[in-house]
Amino acid sequence: MTEFYLEDLQVGDRFESDAFSVTEHDIIAFARAFDPQPFHLDVEAAKQSVFGGLVASGWHTAAMTMKLFVTGGLRLAGGSVGLGVDELRWPLPVRAGDTLRLQTEIMEIRPSRSKPDRGIIRIRNVTTNQKGEEVQTFFASVLVRRRTADKIPL
Amino acid sequence: MTEFYLEDLQVGDRFESDAFSVTEHDIIAFARAFDPQPFHLDVEAAKQSVFGGLVASGWHTAAMTMKLFVTGGLRLAGGSVGLGVDELRWPLPVRAGDTLRLQTEIMEIRPSRSKPDRGIIRIRNVTTNQKGEEVQTFFASVLVRRRTADKIPL
Repeated sequence: MTEFYLEDLQVGDRFESDAFSVTEHDIIAFARAFDPQPFHLDVEAAKQSVFGGLVASGWHTAAMTMKLFVTGGLRLAGGSVGLGVDELRWPLPVRAGDTLRLQTEIMEIRPSRSKPDRGIIRIRNVTTNQKGEEVQTFFASVLVRRRTADKIPL
Repeated sequence: MTEFYLEDLQVGDRFESDAFSVTEHDIIAFARAFDPQPFHLDVEAAKQSVFGGLVASGWHTAAMTMKLFVTGGLRLAGGSVGLGVDELRWPLPVRAGDTLRLQTEIMEIRPSRSKPDRGIIRIRNVTTNQKGEEVQTFFASVLVRRRTADKIPL
């Protein structure tokens, strides 16, 4: 699997992830640990909620998206270190049985002015379900190593 | 436990959470499920990373923060439904043994113009460790029920 350095990337490059299916058990287990609300925990109670049925916590969708990112096409040398996330939205909820995929697009590439061994990319991550509907979108700033750094004496 | 409606809240109101301690086991279990990178998975490998030791995934910090929010002081009638998150930042990593707390402040309150039974609040969430250092900050827009909606015929 190729590992990417800053010099390998261009604005507009797109990457696809594998697919990931979420089960009712997964949704409830995540909710018990991190977001214990009836519409994430209990199928019957969720029917009475604004969602009309069991839905995954938005933070569960975010976590599943990270799994898709880390195991997807944009493998960064040294790993993916996120500096920040903007405009995180959940246009539709994720439900049991949904199969998620992630599309990542590079929006901006900025070599560091002060540190020649690194740069920052701004990416847009769009998570879709099996119908192609968007369930989560956000922009992230991610630290990326420069390949040329190998040639710079430390 | 009081449940809050839109009319109960004022800009500037602040809420505190309980404390939550994170273990090495928790950090590694979350990483295996959602963010399988060496600096989240393996104590020895993490020592060689940019973090100098094992750190929690930022999405794990976000999930723990949701747990602190849902079990904290700002219990919303009908539950907490997040519409979006902005400016999510991780100024410092969370490490095994850290004890987290959440402070929530209400920044803005907007009754819906079209739907008299609800409104949106904008909150700022600041997660701190046991030294009082900020480990995560963000703004969120959250749906809140209006108490007066009970009097409106459907």
